[in-house]
Amino acid sequence: MLRPMAVRNPTLLFRPHLRELHGYTPGEQPKIRGLIKLNTNENPYPPAPKVLKVTQQAVDGRLRLYPNPTADALREKLARFHGCDPLQIIVGNGSDELLAMAVRAFSEPMSREVPPHFSRVQFFWPSYSLYPILAQIHGATPIKVPLAADFGLPSVKELKKGKIWDFRAALSLVTTPNAPSGRGYRTADLEALCEAQKGIIILDEAYVDFAEENALELALNYPHVIVSRTFSKAYSLCFQRVGYFVAHPKVIEGLQKTRDSYNVNGLGQVAAEATLDALPYYHKNFDRIKKSRARLHRELAGMGWAVLPSQTNFILTRPAQGSAEYWLGALRDKKLLVRWFSAPDMNEWLRISIGSETEVDALLQAIRQIQASA
Amino acid sequence: MLRPMAVRNPTLLFRPHLRELHGYTPGEQPKIRGLIKLNTNENPYPPAPKVLKVTQQAVDGRLRLYPNPTADALREKLARFHGCDPLQIIVGNGSDELLAMAVRAFSEPMSREVPPHFSRVQFFWPSYSLYPILAQIHGATPIKVPLAADFGLPSVKELKKGKIWDFRAALSLVTTPNAPSGRGYRTADLEALCEAQKGIIILDEAYVDFAEENALELALNYPHVIVSRTFSKAYSLCFQRVGYFVAHPKVIEGLQKTRDSYNVNGLGQVAAEATLDALPYYHKNFDRIKKSRARLHRELAGMGWAVLPSQTNFILTRPAQGSAEYWLGALRDKKLLVRWFSAPDMNEWLRISIGSETEVDALLQAIRQIQASA
Repeated sequence: MLRPMAVRNPTLLFRPHLRELHGYTPGEQPKIRGLIKLNTNENPYPPAPKVLKVTQQAVDGRLRLYPNPTADALREKLARFHGCDPLQIIVGNGSDELLAMAVRAFSEPMSREVPPHFSRVQFFWPSYSLYPILAQIHGATPIKVPLAADFGLPSVKELKKGKIWDFRAALSLVTTPNAPSGRGYRTADLEALCEAQKGIIILDEAYVDFAEENALELALNYPHVIVSRTFSKAYSLCFQRVGYFVAHPKVIEGLQKTRDSYNVNGLGQVAAEATLDALPYYHKNFDRIKKSRARLHRELAGMGWAVLPSQTNFILTRPAQGSAEYWLGALRDKKLLVRWFSAPDMNEWLRISIGSETEVDALLQAIRQIQASA
Repeated sequence: MLRPMAVRNPTLLFRPHLRELHGYTPGEQPKIRGLIKLNTNENPYPPAPKVLKVTQQAVDGRLRLYPNPTADALREKLARFHGCDPLQIIVGNGSDELLAMAVRAFSEPMSREVPPHFSRVQFFWPSYSLYPILAQIHGATPIKVPLAADFGLPSVKELKKGKIWDFRAALSLVTTPNAPSGRGYRTADLEALCEAQKGIIILDEAYVDFAEENALELALNYPHVIVSRTFSKAYSLCFQRVGYFVAHPKVIEGLQKTRDSYNVNGLGQVAAEATLDALPYYHKNFDRIKKSRARLHRELAGMGWAVLPSQTNFILTRPAQGSAEYWLGALRDKKLLVRWFSAPDMNEWLRISIGSETEVDALLQAIRQIQASA
């Protein structure tokens, strides 16, 4: 069969800015049995028994049918949960899908035809490492604004003085509580930032159920503020990909038009709806995780490790001796998987998800063994 | 609480081309009980019992974990199924997600900075009504190239003469067999088109399991040809959103980089994998549907309705008397839901999904009753 001469190298058929792009690297999903996975901030506890039962029961002939395209039943339950209207909610295939949609809906690809701030997607750094990649895929301009050394949120005054943060940027993303630092931000401080911001601002609250405060009210009170939530971490549903945005009805309406028609799988909708009927189960898990987090913090600090105060289901920690990369390997040899980022501003730290009580025991025991044999 | 003055109307924060956009309208998913749904080309038969069992069994503690980000096990099975390499396959959250990704990866938003053909997303018309909307969302130029009155595929010679089809267009989409006409296209004719095409061409084979031929080999032989497939229709898995592309490894590699990190939900992956272990069950369903299709065609033609020959799990038909819109309502009154498109070039036709034997009986009986009482 003849091959057309013009397209020997199909890479050249991609848009120029995509040809050299490096995609996002998700945390490793290992196939090794018996490995303790503390690398992707999954919840150590399974979904509520009721959620599993309801989801199992939904695996029937309905699988042949399209799911509800706008996740109506789930949006109604979420609206009751948050005290808002279903028209203030859009559900996504995980919040990642919604973040990508927002980048495409609010920021322009770089071009001489639009003022630079129309193309700016800005975020503090370090934060969720997907943000710059979403901007790059879209051809927008990712702007990393460094956090202070303690990973605290800069004040509006500091941001104005620093002149790096753009108050007119098309889109700003704030992970709150932050990842990978685990730092929580005060709602009052976030509100001051929102007040000063002209473009869309997304408060990405993926970890907020493990924090002391949340900023949901800002999405209900400010037309340019979006709060992003997910069922993945706190509600043990990573596998089923359900996240959502809360925002002004006009913002939601505009995003709905750019959404894939049937973007949220049916069993994911069923499981998320059942989750909202089983909240006490999850609240107990949040308490257990927060207790384990406090214990891990205390024990590591006792061994001389630097530990940042965490409002999430992970901690960021710097080993007392030996490089973070060394510890990544040493723990892996003991079947414990944690996360290490090679970026120069992060490579002294390990991010460790809070496991179950026994997983935390295993981690601490492994660390002691490694230190003792060093 | 103060509201920032600059953003009273958050619609103005959307990119200009999105402000007036009309989104895609999915076929209705009615909540009325007892309605026979022949409007969205769902399969009338449930997934194989084995598929349901395996999926039910997967509803356990693993829901707390992220799914495999690249659907590796499913891609390996698909590669064996199609006689290709897993690197020639990308899995999506339904093929809709992949079609949207392709529009964004291969076509440029309209701009004075790029030659017009870089922004062209072209397709024959009528075909899948999502295509122009995907182009509009992206800011690319949708180009509708009319099919002949019999909905047949124009030859390359005719296309060259007509001068509407752009052989350099960044992206061309061909639904084959076509929807909503149901017409099948010969692989030899598709190959001639692919040979002449310089840009990426997607052969969207959503309905191909009900056809006499498929064009998968073109994706394996031409570096600029993508074949799109889905588990939704033939494999009764609409609910779980699993579709895939087969293409050159370099095309797949480029698309993987623009994909959401965990785009295919875990239970969808499990169900699709189990489906590939139960193919004989589905082959029997294809035969039943094709038999019902032949019967429906014969009976409607016998009543004087125009019926296009179909290679899909639906037929396009023009009532003998009364407008198509009238029939949409009259059938709905009898609890039968079919699809009618209001566009001027389509509004004489009804698209009717092939139901089960009893659903086809009910449809024919309702039509006879409506005709008798008219």
